[in-house]
Amino acid sequence: MIVVMRHGAEEDEINAVVFRLKQEGYKIEVSKGEERTIIGVVGLNTRLAETGIEVMPGVDKVVPILPPYKIASTNDKKGKTIINVNGVEIGGNRIQVFAGPCAVENREQLLETARVVQKAGASILRGGAFKPRTSPYSFQGLEEEGLKILAEARRITGMPVVTEVMDTKSVDVVAEYADIIQIGARNMQNYALLKEVALTEKPVLLKRGPSATIEEWVLAAEYLMAGGNEQIILCERGIRTFENATRNTLDLSAVPILKAITHLPVIVDPSHGTGKWRLVTPMSKAAIAAGADGVMVEVHLNPAEALSDGMQSLTENNFIVLMKEVEKICQAMGRHFSSNPG
Amino acid sequence: MIVVMRHGAEEDEINAVVFRLKQEGYKIEVSKGEERTIIGVVGLNTRLAETGIEVMPGVDKVVPILPPYKIASTNDKKGKTIINVNGVEIGGNRIQVFAGPCAVENREQLLETARVVQKAGASILRGGAFKPRTSPYSFQGLEEEGLKILAEARRITGMPVVTEVMDTKSVDVVAEYADIIQIGARNMQNYALLKEVALTEKPVLLKRGPSATIEEWVLAAEYLMAGGNEQIILCERGIRTFENATRNTLDLSAVPILKAITHLPVIVDPSHGTGKWRLVTPMSKAAIAAGADGVMVEVHLNPAEALSDGMQSLTENNFIVLMKEVEKICQAMGRHFSSNPG
Amino acid sequence: MIVVMRHGAEEDEINAVVFRLKQEGYKIEVSKGEERTIIGVVGLNTRLAETGIEVMPGVDKVVPILPPYKIASTNDKKGKTIINVNGVEIGGNRIQVFAGPCAVENREQLLETARVVQKAGASILRGGAFKPRTSPYSFQGLEEEGLKILAEARRITGMPVVTEVMDTKSVDVVAEYADIIQIGARNMQNYALLKEVALTEKPVLLKRGPSATIEEWVLAAEYLMAGGNEQIILCERGIRTFENATRNTLDLSAVPILKAITHLPVIVDPSHGTGKWRLVTPMSKAAIAAGADGVMVEVHLNPAEALSDGMQSLTENNFIVLMKEVEKICQAMGRHFSSNPG
Amino acid sequence: MIVVMRHGAEEDEINAVVFRLKQEGYKIEVSKGEERTIIGVVGLNTRLAETGIEVMPGVDKVVPILPPYKIASTNDKKGKTIINVNGVEIGGNRIQVFAGPCAVENREQLLETARVVQKAGASILRGGAFKPRTSPYSFQGLEEEGLKILAEARRITGMPVVTEVMDTKSVDVVAEYADIIQIGARNMQNYALLKEVALTEKPVLLKRGPSATIEEWVLAAEYLMAGGNEQIILCERGIRTFENATRNTLDLSAVPILKAITHLPVIVDPSHGTGKWRLVTPMSKAAIAAGADGVMVEVHLNPAEALSDGMQSLTENNFIVLMKEVEKICQAMGRHFSSNPG
Repeated sequence: MIVVMRHGAEEDEINAVVFRLKQEGYKIEVSKGEERTIIGVVGLNTRLAETGIEVMPGVDKVVPILPPYKIASTNDKKGKTIINVNGVEIGGNRIQVFAGPCAVENREQLLETARVVQKAGASILRGGAFKPRTSPYSFQGLEEEGLKILAEARRITGMPVVTEVMDTKSVDVVAEYADIIQIGARNMQNYALLKEVALTEKPVLLKRGPSATIEEWVLAAEYLMAGGNEQIILCERGIRTFENATRNTLDLSAVPILKAITHLPVIVDPSHGTGKWRLVTPMSKAAIAAGADGVMVEVHLNPAEALSDGMQSLTENNFIVLMKEVEKICQAMGRHFSSNPG
Repeated sequence: MIVVMRHGAEEDEINAVVFRLKQEGYKIEVSKGEERTIIGVVGLNTRLAETGIEVMPGVDKVVPILPPYKIASTNDKKGKTIINVNGVEIGGNRIQVFAGPCAVENREQLLETARVVQKAGASILRGGAFKPRTSPYSFQGLEEEGLKILAEARRITGMPVVTEVMDTKSVDVVAEYADIIQIGARNMQNYALLKEVALTEKPVLLKRGPSATIEEWVLAAEYLMAGGNEQIILCERGIRTFENATRNTLDLSAVPILKAITHLPVIVDPSHGTGKWRLVTPMSKAAIAAGADGVMVEVHLNPAEALSDGMQSLTENNFIVLMKEVEKICQAMGRHFSSNPG
Repeated sequence: MIVVMRHGAEEDEINAVVFRLKQEGYKIEVSKGEERTIIGVVGLNTRLAETGIEVMPGVDKVVPILPPYKIASTNDKKGKTIINVNGVEIGGNRIQVFAGPCAVENREQLLETARVVQKAGASILRGGAFKPRTSPYSFQGLEEEGLKILAEARRITGMPVVTEVMDTKSVDVVAEYADIIQIGARNMQNYALLKEVALTEKPVLLKRGPSATIEEWVLAAEYLMAGGNEQIILCERGIRTFENATRNTLDLSAVPILKAITHLPVIVDPSHGTGKWRLVTPMSKAAIAAGADGVMVEVHLNPAEALSDGMQSLTENNFIVLMKEVEKICQAMGRHFSSNPG
Repeated sequence: MIVVMRHGAEEDEINAVVFRLKQEGYKIEVSKGEERTIIGVVGLNTRLAETGIEVMPGVDKVVPILPPYKIASTNDKKGKTIINVNGVEIGGNRIQVFAGPCAVENREQLLETARVVQKAGASILRGGAFKPRTSPYSFQGLEEEGLKILAEARRITGMPVVTEVMDTKSVDVVAEYADIIQIGARNMQNYALLKEVALTEKPVLLKRGPSATIEEWVLAAEYLMAGGNEQIILCERGIRTFENATRNTLDLSAVPILKAITHLPVIVDPSHGTGKWRLVTPMSKAAIAAGADGVMVEVHLNPAEALSDGMQSLTENNFIVLMKEVEKICQAMGRHFSSNPG
């Protein structure tokens, strides 16, 4: 961390900052330039933002040097994290495809969809039982009934299931049924929820918030890790920008950046990331080419009847096409593909 | 709602859409143009997005006509909503100033700050007991202890207190102590929380999410209203943009827009909206000039010692200057000002 | 400027950076911390970004300390710049209102509008002769014919005129007729144009680019100043964000920021900044309350017949209301108002 | 185009709108719903935005139905446009790699870089002679001298060269030397420049503006096409968002969208799109997997000495790695690769 003093800062002001920082236990080096005095501060900076240095007289700005996260950082752990969910490895050589409907609508729909996506090669089943919806008048999910249907699908197919938890009160019940607990984009900075989910022993799929920087997203992962849960899958699902041809702007650059700064697996959700089913296959291919460990796609056997997000769901046939296309990119990347034997 | 068919859509496709819409109970008018067929749909459109019309063969796009909210809309209620909190009216002629520290740090700090802001003319006391923090290593608030200190400050000063709830589990305890329950920006689309807070009888201060459109924000208010709580104060606190000279970009245009499309009171938080204390006074004045019903500002008697957000907090002297400056704008607007007798 | 080395940077790498910087004539101070080595660099940093330090082995990042502009900065000039255009002072105590149609459509329209806005108190006449239009099929302006009409309006009313130049080829002709040359938002980083306009002796109204940071905007002003033209009026006109309730998001925080970091006059264009005439009056008031030196508003005597931007134009009556409302805010700010005798 | 009347619009107001539209030659269908009257308007809508319907009494909003561009649209032309530049086909089966330094710095640098990139398989040479720079104190390019060096490199290597034009005054000289004229991101809406470049017979590489929607970008292409030049290559180079881990956010979803709505070739510039050389190879692969017809990358043989954009430039070795990696993705896409014989 570096403290930059204002042009013309008084000697007294500089001394006061130095005194305060030494009091907090930091080592200090002062560089007096022609225009500005710069104070180098050595030590962990995780709490320094709170010491109020920035508002001390004569201070122009405080520039952080180290990233604000630790456990999620590649500095602190040897090798990449590979998460094993009932035998399905996420973050290893094999690319995994998470597929299923946006929402669990009823037993028949989910079981049939599970069979279809498994047959096409998906390795993990997705489906929402608790649904965050922009309008209070939209379908809000089957809740525990939906979780039971997901558990039945797992029993029948053997596929692990991932489903979203929206509320601290539901963490226990979701953790009981799910193999992977999803924290949705709008809850990425729901800190109460992060702390509660950190206490479960289930892997967590942490979606990026629509206006979260990559650093804030990794800090949300750090919340989970600091709370004791280090099995985290990061999921890029688009950020909010001025462009309205897509529902969100899928930020695929986040994939190689996250691969460099953390040791966690990274997947991409092109269904929410674009909001348009025609873009799901090309963006799935792009995601894998950018280095993602998997993709999560919405499949609905009859999108025109879907209770949510029909616009971005693939039909069975479109999903089969996606799987074939994505597999070619996987091979070009030198990686094995989903549930297909390698 | 209007359904626009693709150029060259088949007669069968058009008929299928019309059939489906009639089945759902809508009245239909079909306009066949040279280039496109357009289907006008009359009726409530709140659930139509889910009927999957958009993915039916031959459909190009579905254009909503009516706003997706009802209770929050100016169409549905005569006059403006005025919220009376222990005698302090929000949304009426009088501009109210909400002031206090970002976080309740200890008893002395809060009580002293309460006295200072009240003396300067603030009418409502703010202070966080549960703090949403980007980093897990930052101060997280005094929790219930903080709520008790707020209640004591109310007892002493008579000022109503507003404080944030972050989690469904804490709604009861916050509602017990607070006069106004704040839903923070990051929780604006925490639907579980909205539904739970809707069940309390306390007025709600609903902050805008950093990437929420005005329409989504009003829909979040609609969640509260549909759940039975119509005492809502909307608080603009900046949106996330590319500009990094400020912490957020304060969107003051939202004020006159909200005044036109809803009947709810609107206030502005220039402390979070800019993140820089030097901007708080000019932006408070601008907020009132744009038509806001009040401002909420952070005051810390010693910002350099603040456990959070010192950078954006006003000192006692700066707050007194703000009050004097803002009062002049209130007068120019023909409105009474905060706790000062009019 | 500070060079932060990577964790574990080799001694050789540090020495190479130091050698290179000394070669370029900078003074250096090296701080070796536990985690990182930090190299403080003293001297002008305007060209340093190009020295390629950032890609030298072992370098993590380069952090600029000084702002990249000089002449536009408050450090380099005593007092505020006041621009006198035919007796109308911009940047002084008096708030100036720039008004007129988006485009000059014909002689009668412009002369009549000029009379109307002058009568209501506007001090400067605006009107586009060269129009930047998103679509090639939209009205592109009367070009030199429009300039002549503007000159006639000045002759009749005595008001100075401001009009846009879009192209280096037209700089001479625009400079011949205009009193203030406008550089439009889309041309803020048209450097060839900035350099050419810098050579004229006319004051320049420099609009902010829709995706320009405040720093980039000041750098565009620096282009003009470095080229020899220091008579610059900065005009905030909204930035592009995800919010689509307005055409742009008017960033009023830019006003007090610019007032602090530069010595230049700052005005606000709420017509383009919002794109909706109903928002023009409240946002004009907010602009003045935030500290702007003036506003520029579009007036069309018959907006439904306007060849461009009718949606954001005020009618005569609405403009008269605006002037009365804005005047009250001017008084509250302790400033004189437009052409009205103070 | 659809005109939506306000709730409670008077019969007179509806009739006035209908009369006005009929006068303009449109066919009209009126649907009177319970809540709103909707007026369907049939005919070309390219100039309707200017008729001022939106501000007529009783009108709520005007919803465009057809896209605002025509020549660029897939509706108006059979098949895809393939641009042949001295035998190099862009937009066909073969993926083309455009490579070279950000700026032409001197003869040796450019000729050596040209040899290196050609040897590694690039098919088109890039290099800037006129440089748009944020700061007036940065290197501004060699101008005509740079163009001559580019022409010499073409003579020696046989590679076509692409270089930017920044100003109408330089269009002739750039067109004399360049094989493809580049319009830079900041000039995408420099309409004077678009019109002038449209008059040349050279293919145009049109970069996306940093805050341009896809629709606005296609409209800029429409300017060129309406002016007579239909040989346009669209180049995605990132948009401006709140994320600051990258210089811009590369919007790869734009690639499949453009492929669907226009017939033009689409390439991607991951160097400017990310601003970080480590991201250039993964994002080049992602671009090709998303369906791009090529990539444009910056190569500098000694980035630490580059006069501009060293941070995002690949060294010779890194470029060779990129070419090998990208080739694998090309094969997976079933496409031939750059200058390598297929």
